[in-house]
Amino acid sequence: MNKIIAQVTIVPLGTGSTSLSFYVAEVEKVLMKYRDIKTQLTPMASILEGDIDEVLKAIREMHEVPFLKGAKRVSTRISIDDRRDKEATMEGKVKSVKSKMK
Amino acid sequence: MNKIIAQVTIVPLGTGSTSLSFYVAEVEKVLMKYRDIKTQLTPMASILEGDIDEVLKAIREMHEVPFLKGAKRVSTRISIDDRRDKEATMEGKVKSVKSKMK
Amino acid sequence: MNKIIAQVTIVPLGTGSTSLSFYVAEVEKVLMKYRDIKTQLTPMASILEGDIDEVLKAIREMHEVPFLKGAKRVSTRISIDDRRDKEATMEGKVKSVKSKMK
Amino acid sequence: MNKIIAQVTIVPLGTGSTSLSFYVAEVEKVLMKYRDIKTQLTPMASILEGDIDEVLKAIREMHEVPFLKGAKRVSTRISIDDRRDKEATMEGKVKSVKSKMK
Repeated sequence: MNKIIAQVTIVPLGTGSTSLSFYVAEVEKVLMKYRDIKTQLTPMASILEGDIDEVLKAIREMHEVPFLKGAKRVSTRISIDDRRDKEATMEGKVKSVKSKMK
Repeated sequence: MNKIIAQVTIVPLGTGSTSLSFYVAEVEKVLMKYRDIKTQLTPMASILEGDIDEVLKAIREMHEVPFLKGAKRVSTRISIDDRRDKEATMEGKVKSVKSKMK
Repeated sequence: MNKIIAQVTIVPLGTGSTSLSFYVAEVEKVLMKYRDIKTQLTPMASILEGDIDEVLKAIREMHEVPFLKGAKRVSTRISIDDRRDKEATMEGKVKSVKSKMK
Repeated sequence: MNKIIAQVTIVPLGTGSTSLSFYVAEVEKVLMKYRDIKTQLTPMASILEGDIDEVLKAIREMHEVPFLKGAKRVSTRISIDDRRDKEATMEGKVKSVKSKMK
């Protein structure tokens, strides 16, 4: 197992409405099945922490959701932070920055 | 005033250490001066909410910080969500998704 | 002057058509005025090479274009590569990689 | 088969040198084996056109390369443009924008 932290933003294009929260909510529901992935929803993305192949599998499934809900074009952006000299966690990264800001 | 939500990740390249939290903390400190910008630190980025030109000014200043701390190359990524039919907020976006997940 | 290479993708959200090339073309036209910025259009982004503040000014202007053409929500993504130990160019970066692939 | 266009940027963090072209070249070599994927190297990314699962498999393999070459932390960014109402190609996207700029 090789743990990563990944950030993903999935948006349908050309849906005719500026509101996208319906799609985002449906995409987010996929993560409920992935019990071994820790998640955090931010105003700009979903952040996932877990084994790299499990996380990529979840993202692959999330990417299909807007199509299942009627979208014809989907833009997906993924950022992966993969550190192998030390185990990184979502919580640890934020804590480390905050402690250094004091 | 035209409010946006922006996400920014600023990393120095080639610093010789896999730990970057020192740089991130120094970059983050810039935001303390920007009283009209709401911020949220996530494990993958900083999220800023405020007037577009004020936010871009802050990001421009943040981008200089790693150089001031010795970095010779900086990679900065910015995502802007600018919605003008309705005022969007960081809190409102997350709430809207969560309410639709029920 | 401090030269950077930046990549920018500007898309309107919720426009009702999956085709976005009209908006991209209008956004791209802005660059014609910026004589000191070198540009390259790729299938996924526009790449700009020039002084950091000039490039950011151009991007700020590009970001307004979809709104002027009727969009109500715009998603803009920017990646900046700023190297100060050596002058980097679009052409030089690609050449350097290609020469090392041999 | 479901064709996408994807953009990927893979950089090692903390390597001690601001020059990353050695790593980028090694990452790029992976694509030689993927005969069904069309590629374009830009100054900021690699662009891939092909079947979504084939492209994701290639990216997964590319992501491992900097580790094999000694990096301890890798940052990978992927953007996927998946359009299903019409087949999109790298060449077609650029042509469409350029024809509308006239």
